[in-house]
Amino acid sequence: MSTFKRLLIGPPKKSRQLREERISKLKALPILSSDALSSVAYGYQAALSEIAFIGVAGLWIGLPIAGVIVLLLIALILSYLQVIHAYPNGGGAYAVASDQFGPVAGLVAGAALLIDYTLTVAVSVSSGIAAITTAYPSLLPWTVPLCLLGILGIMVMNLRGMNESASILMWPTYLFIISIVAMEVVGFIHLSHAGWHYKQTPQFGVLPKEITVLLILRAFASGCSALTGIEAISNATPQFREPTIRNAQKTLLWLGLLLAIMFAGTSYLTFMKGLQVNSNFTLLGMLAQSYFHTGFFFYFIQFTTFAVLILAANTSYSGFPLLAALMARDRFMPRMFELRGDRLGYSNGIIVLSVLASILIIAFNGQTDELIPLYAIGVFLSFTLAQTGLVKRWFKTKTSGWIWRTAINSFGGLLSAIVTVVFAVAKFTQGAWIVLVVLPLIIYFGIQVHRHYDRIADHLRINMAQLKPLAHKTIVIVPIGGVNRVVAGTLSYALSVSDQVIAFYVGFDDESIEKMEQKWKQWDTGIRLVTARSQYRSVVRPLMRFLTTVENYEGAPDHIIVAIPQFVTRRWWHNILHNQTSIMLRTILLYRKDIVVTTVPYHLGD
Amino acid sequence: MSTFKRLLIGPPKKSRQLREERISKLKALPILSSDALSSVAYGYQAALSEIAFIGVAGLWIGLPIAGVIVLLLIALILSYLQVIHAYPNGGGAYAVASDQFGPVAGLVAGAALLIDYTLTVAVSVSSGIAAITTAYPSLLPWTVPLCLLGILGIMVMNLRGMNESASILMWPTYLFIISIVAMEVVGFIHLSHAGWHYKQTPQFGVLPKEITVLLILRAFASGCSALTGIEAISNATPQFREPTIRNAQKTLLWLGLLLAIMFAGTSYLTFMKGLQVNSNFTLLGMLAQSYFHTGFFFYFIQFTTFAVLILAANTSYSGFPLLAALMARDRFMPRMFELRGDRLGYSNGIIVLSVLASILIIAFNGQTDELIPLYAIGVFLSFTLAQTGLVKRWFKTKTSGWIWRTAINSFGGLLSAIVTVVFAVAKFTQGAWIVLVVLPLIIYFGIQVHRHYDRIADHLRINMAQLKPLAHKTIVIVPIGGVNRVVAGTLSYALSVSDQVIAFYVGFDDESIEKMEQKWKQWDTGIRLVTARSQYRSVVRPLMRFLTTVENYEGAPDHIIVAIPQFVTRRWWHNILHNQTSIMLRTILLYRKDIVVTTVPYHLGD
Repeated sequence: MSTFKRLLIGPPKKSRQLREERISKLKALPILSSDALSSVAYGYQAALSEIAFIGVAGLWIGLPIAGVIVLLLIALILSYLQVIHAYPNGGGAYAVASDQFGPVAGLVAGAALLIDYTLTVAVSVSSGIAAITTAYPSLLPWTVPLCLLGILGIMVMNLRGMNESASILMWPTYLFIISIVAMEVVGFIHLSHAGWHYKQTPQFGVLPKEITVLLILRAFASGCSALTGIEAISNATPQFREPTIRNAQKTLLWLGLLLAIMFAGTSYLTFMKGLQVNSNFTLLGMLAQSYFHTGFFFYFIQFTTFAVLILAANTSYSGFPLLAALMARDRFMPRMFELRGDRLGYSNGIIVLSVLASILIIAFNGQTDELIPLYAIGVFLSFTLAQTGLVKRWFKTKTSGWIWRTAINSFGGLLSAIVTVVFAVAKFTQGAWIVLVVLPLIIYFGIQVHRHYDRIADHLRINMAQLKPLAHKTIVIVPIGGVNRVVAGTLSYALSVSDQVIAFYVGFDDESIEKMEQKWKQWDTGIRLVTARSQYRSVVRPLMRFLTTVENYEGAPDHIIVAIPQFVTRRWWHNILHNQTSIMLRTILLYRKDIVVTTVPYHLGD
Repeated sequence: MSTFKRLLIGPPKKSRQLREERISKLKALPILSSDALSSVAYGYQAALSEIAFIGVAGLWIGLPIAGVIVLLLIALILSYLQVIHAYPNGGGAYAVASDQFGPVAGLVAGAALLIDYTLTVAVSVSSGIAAITTAYPSLLPWTVPLCLLGILGIMVMNLRGMNESASILMWPTYLFIISIVAMEVVGFIHLSHAGWHYKQTPQFGVLPKEITVLLILRAFASGCSALTGIEAISNATPQFREPTIRNAQKTLLWLGLLLAIMFAGTSYLTFMKGLQVNSNFTLLGMLAQSYFHTGFFFYFIQFTTFAVLILAANTSYSGFPLLAALMARDRFMPRMFELRGDRLGYSNGIIVLSVLASILIIAFNGQTDELIPLYAIGVFLSFTLAQTGLVKRWFKTKTSGWIWRTAINSFGGLLSAIVTVVFAVAKFTQGAWIVLVVLPLIIYFGIQVHRHYDRIADHLRINMAQLKPLAHKTIVIVPIGGVNRVVAGTLSYALSVSDQVIAFYVGFDDESIEKMEQKWKQWDTGIRLVTARSQYRSVVRPLMRFLTTVENYEGAPDHIIVAIPQFVTRRWWHNILHNQTSIMLRTILLYRKDIVVTTVPYHLGD
């Protein structure tokens, strides 16, 4: 087991190997924005799939929706420029909300983000695998196993402890940007040659009778999944080189510009080509195919799409464990999230995230479009909290230009709040209800955890002047099954720690009890033997009764020790050959107050 | 957990409630022969399915095969009449083989029987569910879950401890006998009206060109599955009323007669009707339908078939656990099989049998015809061992009539041996190889278990005059993480059992170590503190190093006790909120010699 772990994740690292590296804009852009940019691979498709049943007549509706999403993007970029300014030490929604509205608001933002990190992994991986199955349709039946394999791979990489700023991680994003922008250039040249109109270009502007406000809102909400991940740069502000704030802001502007160009361009070209949602191929893949057929460039686009989506999933692997560790430090999550593993990563967070994302993949059969309704609601909720938190902060601090800053963040916060509500209402029956159920559960859990830790801290605190360790009177009870070497060893131990030792034997019939008593007399150890008969062939019950008797005895000792011999077998499977009474006894006795259980090992086969 | 167990299997029973009841012939026949008689439901079908691909032209070949099987049945019945005579105390193949050829031969017979008991459950349950799906084809997709539910039901009944001689268990078999014999009567009347020939009756006697010797042997081997279970009566001889031997022999004769009539009759009628194997319906069900359409009697036959097959599976639930307990008593199986559960049944055997049968059902998708190639090979192997064992016995004892008894058993043994070999060869690629791999593994396991228990018994045996328990010098090491109530309690315990106590602290950096040392000085307990620094954030490694130091210290005490505080939380889920270091430490320390681990519980929230 231990060898396997070493092979998989490598030898442990020393604590002092932990250090952070400041990164350049050129590196920060691809690494921090892979989540946001990669959503070009599924955002527009997610919007269209809501109105896909209408057919060609509904395709044009995607365009105004994409336009509104680009406007929303601009507003959010402006808002987050302010976040970078206000929280140069990293303004995650959890930190901002805790800081401005207190721990419960922080907990809400934290829970929302934990949900969305998990969904980012599930959505990105399933969408990445969809890029592969679009290129190789014969892999379609293996979608779910491929997704799980992808998650497993990312998990192992993160347990090994990947250097987040490794230069190799730049390439998928840059290649993706290049391939999408290049395709757009090819697309527009192609389009201009065709006289800005193909014969398959759908009609624009005629509302099909099937369309409803709810459908439009749903399509909009699904399309907003393209905006997830834009907060990553502001969270990571302290990792930028000096001048930190300016560099982070410039990078964010670039992200906004690129995302707008890539999202708007591919959406427009997809419309002009009249492409419809298809459950076996991605829209982006079909668009690439329409220009390059199945030539090299088509496969190139599919693989860079896959790579950038896997990288996007990977960013959640720094976000989720770090946030869980922060929340654990604030006592809102189990303490285990705070522990660093052998390779200095937050192993427990990494593993929990992988398990949760795998469950989502299995539950939704690896279908990106079905995961989308759960997605982004948490992101926009945390956007809202971060923006309104900033508004409050501007009012308090009144730094230079606070009025227009307040205006920008109020507008951003309002838009985010509206999107959150639209999401919750329009997508409710499609799956958003799951998030609306899970979110309060996580918050409730966090509050309970906090209370539990507080209560225990109170319990354990002592006045060092008053409470000192003191020796007490003890008695040792040794359950025995016969006279043999193990029993002799356990009794020796008992005599070593106390002058009051009782051997306790449970027989299933009178005959065996009598035999035992004779044998005991013959052994002549000077130790008292107490016997009991069990009609139900159970050792536990008579022992419990006897312990109660000892406890209630006048002048009972303060510590009752039960010494249990435990066979230690040479091979693990030998354990099934021995009664596991000792493990059972230990577990049961743990729940009795004031009983101390001692396991006296006996090594077999030495 | 405990409450759930009570609800499911009822309150525990006292040991003295265990007693055996002698049963009358009228009750013994249905209960002991359900396994054998119920194989009428699948035996002929199993034979035909081997040559099903030939179509109508091959159907007649089933008839001579059925004839040979009936002849084999007669030979085996005659042989087993001798077994009853020779072993009136129950002559299971395990007992006979152990008795005549020594423990290894007994182990071979025992392993073969354990395999076949497991297969009896899988085959009978899947075949019983097939009777139900024949009546209700819409249940076909639920075959595997229904089979598992069936096994679960039988398991719970047996864990509750069913009275094996309950009168209610008579009815399925009698109803099955009545319904099959009645159907045969109807069938023959029908046939005589039709002039002993239907227009769909296949041609007889022309060998199709696809037929090969291997195919005929395979069909014969599969058909022999109809003979499994005929040993049950001889195994249970002591349960018969006086005159025990005569009653058991009479019952066995009746079993043989009924099985011959039912098997031969249904096989003949199936041929005359020209019925072919169909993966969705059983042959017996189609035969019933051909006479009664889907009227009451058709459903009646399907349900009695189902009931008798479940009862047949149930007989394995007395056979397997009892045999496993016998083998455990002889130290060939883990001792846990010998323990009687709360309700006096051999619970571990019952559970293991259910798990194994469920695995078979899942692996073979609940298809009886695919399980058949694994079946019966174990039965015929144990038949062979039992018969040859008897031959050896007759030679030794030379009781009256030993010559013709020897002749009968030699003939039976020879036939069984031939069938075993035919099975192993003809069915090898179809699945018999699995049995031929598993069987030696079980035998190897049994021998290893025996050696292990022998070695341990040697180890543990002591000379009571020489070895007495003695007190030794002890030292207690208490790993601590700070100064609090739990640490104070654990140190108090340590002081109570030894005058040598060391507190041991592991810090992850110099700062925390220094802080701890100051705090310790301030607490002023008189107990020595040893600190260590861990570069790898692990408490285990520094503790291990320290223990080695203590062990190698001159004048080291004989007992090193490590006292570990253990939080006991009020609710089980609170456990995830605390580091499970104590469990980990305990497990690791168990594998170090001469270290005694003491768990000092601290009850939270009281």
